[in-house]
Amino acid sequence: MNHQADPSSDSAFLTAFHHVATIGATDNNGVDRQALTLEDKQTRDWMRTWAESNGFEVRVDAIGNMFACLQLVPAASAGSADVPGSPVGSADTSAAPYVLIGSHLDSQPLGGRFDGAYGVIAALFAALRVKEELAESGQRPTFNLAVVNWFNEEGGRFAPSIMGSSVYAGLFDLEEMLAVTDLAGTSVAEALAAIDYDGTDTPPEAITYAEIHIEQGRILEREAMDIGVVESSWYTQKLDIDVLGEQSHTGATAMADRHDALVAAAKVVLAVAEVVGEFDDEALVSSVGQHVVEPNSPIVVPRRVHMVADLRSSDPAIVQTARDSLRRQIAEIARAHDITINVEDFDIRDKRHFPPEGVELAEKAVANEGLSIRRLETMAGHDSVAMNHRVPAVMMFVPSVDGVSHCEREFTTDEDMLRGVRVLTSVTGELVRGQLADVRDGEVWVGRSVAEARSSVTV
Amino acid sequence: MNHQADPSSDSAFLTAFHHVATIGATDNNGVDRQALTLEDKQTRDWMRTWAESNGFEVRVDAIGNMFACLQLVPAASAGSADVPGSPVGSADTSAAPYVLIGSHLDSQPLGGRFDGAYGVIAALFAALRVKEELAESGQRPTFNLAVVNWFNEEGGRFAPSIMGSSVYAGLFDLEEMLAVTDLAGTSVAEALAAIDYDGTDTPPEAITYAEIHIEQGRILEREAMDIGVVESSWYTQKLDIDVLGEQSHTGATAMADRHDALVAAAKVVLAVAEVVGEFDDEALVSSVGQHVVEPNSPIVVPRRVHMVADLRSSDPAIVQTARDSLRRQIAEIARAHDITINVEDFDIRDKRHFPPEGVELAEKAVANEGLSIRRLETMAGHDSVAMNHRVPAVMMFVPSVDGVSHCEREFTTDEDMLRGVRVLTSVTGELVRGQLADVRDGEVWVGRSVAEARSSVTV
Repeated sequence: MNHQADPSSDSAFLTAFHHVATIGATDNNGVDRQALTLEDKQTRDWMRTWAESNGFEVRVDAIGNMFACLQLVPAASAGSADVPGSPVGSADTSAAPYVLIGSHLDSQPLGGRFDGAYGVIAALFAALRVKEELAESGQRPTFNLAVVNWFNEEGGRFAPSIMGSSVYAGLFDLEEMLAVTDLAGTSVAEALAAIDYDGTDTPPEAITYAEIHIEQGRILEREAMDIGVVESSWYTQKLDIDVLGEQSHTGATAMADRHDALVAAAKVVLAVAEVVGEFDDEALVSSVGQHVVEPNSPIVVPRRVHMVADLRSSDPAIVQTARDSLRRQIAEIARAHDITINVEDFDIRDKRHFPPEGVELAEKAVANEGLSIRRLETMAGHDSVAMNHRVPAVMMFVPSVDGVSHCEREFTTDEDMLRGVRVLTSVTGELVRGQLADVRDGEVWVGRSVAEARSSVTV
Repeated sequence: MNHQADPSSDSAFLTAFHHVATIGATDNNGVDRQALTLEDKQTRDWMRTWAESNGFEVRVDAIGNMFACLQLVPAASAGSADVPGSPVGSADTSAAPYVLIGSHLDSQPLGGRFDGAYGVIAALFAALRVKEELAESGQRPTFNLAVVNWFNEEGGRFAPSIMGSSVYAGLFDLEEMLAVTDLAGTSVAEALAAIDYDGTDTPPEAITYAEIHIEQGRILEREAMDIGVVESSWYTQKLDIDVLGEQSHTGATAMADRHDALVAAAKVVLAVAEVVGEFDDEALVSSVGQHVVEPNSPIVVPRRVHMVADLRSSDPAIVQTARDSLRRQIAEIARAHDITINVEDFDIRDKRHFPPEGVELAEKAVANEGLSIRRLETMAGHDSVAMNHRVPAVMMFVPSVDGVSHCEREFTTDEDMLRGVRVLTSVTGELVRGQLADVRDGEVWVGRSVAEARSSVTV
């Protein structure tokens, strides 16, 4: 007897999730799968195999986003199967657009196994369950459905982050992003080709978007809530800070003759950390994550430190006030050390509201499942924030133990993950039946583009 | 008519020096020839070709030091030409030991073209001139003569610095140094083999040592002196400082929940810079030259900063007081940030006196040339400091414009370089005639070994 296990069951989900966590696994239960590494390729290959063996058609676009597509709407019902101008090489003969659901499979260096991967695997299972439900009920959906693994959400190897979804959403230029290089000088284009994910497929056209992710904060855990639904994203911006001193000998050069870039840079790092003190507790978060010293030799006084500072707040005015304060302090540090410090604003991401109709949709789905839900904001950037520029998007969270993320001890329970899959399945079912698509032209979710937001900051 | 230019003339020296400065030349008149790079190989190949075409025999030892040897003492005069146990493959059939003169051809990243290279090229020309003078006068010297290019004086790629001469002098273990790796994980042994300088020759046995180098300071220029002679080296030590925080998300993690390694590290950098304020002006120099952040991603709060601090003073007590103060301050920083900071002493180099007989020898040579000389100390480490542990050594300086070094704008005039070659030739002539060899067992220059010095510091 050939026993066939249910491919969309809870146990199949947990098996899949915990299997993927072994790819690029680190010593302390984390993963290291930076974008376009061999570990990222292995995870992508796993998704392709799983999707194809479950009846999905896999497409890879030019920036390396992967789409596992389910054509739920018969071609005939949406128009002719031979529409002139249909994308070459696309199997999509239907004009019905797609509900996209997903997240990202790449990780930070020594990152957690939940961040992103949970959302993609949850989406694969939610899509399979929706397909099964439609087959059982005989219902005809309004839209097709695809699960997406967005390229380079993390931005650890290639900056800026949220790259693949931002290109898809039209916020970033494709060619510009393909030319971005990592610290070793390898471009995105080269790295995509190196792991055979330099795709040529036309991506499915999105009508709505949904994503589920770990919270990466403590609110749901503290309030014992099952699910969070995101009302808006924080305003964020980065500062590119280039400290230009003069290289000299650590032994032979008198202290008075030095222009030590690292000493000045240390003062900048402290200014960035301490600027939060000018505002209410936790109203602003700030940090320097990237910080490279040149020439980085034990007996050479550093000539240059290049760093990236990150400022985030729910209130755009707070970020701008902090940024102005930092620019003044940095100018003062440069003067005191008689060196040059160049500061540039970049990667400005405006505060954005998700459509209230999507928030309500998630709340209804959660209520139907007998679970609890809370509205909140996201401090972190997500692919959903980029997608919300293009189509109405729903963003949901499951609880994070201790609120930690981007580290190996990131954790979410199996039970919470399974609750999230149920809720995402329910929301996805509503979306393929046409929900949320009609708020497409609403003003609530159509905000300024990144470029507009960038120009609105006084440099 | 076959016109043959004088191979040891001033113009030949300048031609050679300025040719070598083109190897690994940088945009702003510096050089980038870190140890065992292709540029280092090119410079080594130049030295081999020059030496062999001028009658030197070139040997390369196991740590990659290059010796261009002149056998000035006939084998017969120093014993049998068939001494049992003579090194295989060595042309040295004479038991007469060698006067060694030289410096190093490797550079710092974006370093100057004078540091080290001047000393090796000056030594090649001084040796050739001594050989010619001996041939003309018919004098029979006491010792043979070899010019040395020491491996990895700079230590920018492989730490510790002054590696080749320290192995030769017995201060560092050969096997331990061959196993040292650069930041990319390449070992010294692998890098030597990669450029075909993994030698097997027995190096010449030294009896005395002389070196000329740029001052890398302002004293000679300020006092309009032609030559400096070094009486002693500064006491130096390094601190290996490992700041261990916790990786987290720059956006999603509350400021209160962070253990940011870079913020704590910035305070350590400032403590190292400011500790000089506890002493008289310029009595201590201190710096952090190497400083590596992990994971170094723009949106991750750093988990680790590994840095190397460098402390130097003429007075060992000042270095130890500064070090004790820093350890106290660093412990306080670790407590305040609730993170771990490990601090270890390493690369301790004791204050060492050069033999006064050598200082006087240099002074006489300078007087004979009608030049001016001044005694001084060296704050920088040099191969001569290592060699002075093994044999009596003479260390001389030529002026540095503006006192700058380890950077592209390092500069010394042609005139000053030529004066230095004349003085080195004169000193070398005295050494091959037997001067200084008899102070070999004196106590003045026999100090504690590095290992002994290391153990004498209370950790």
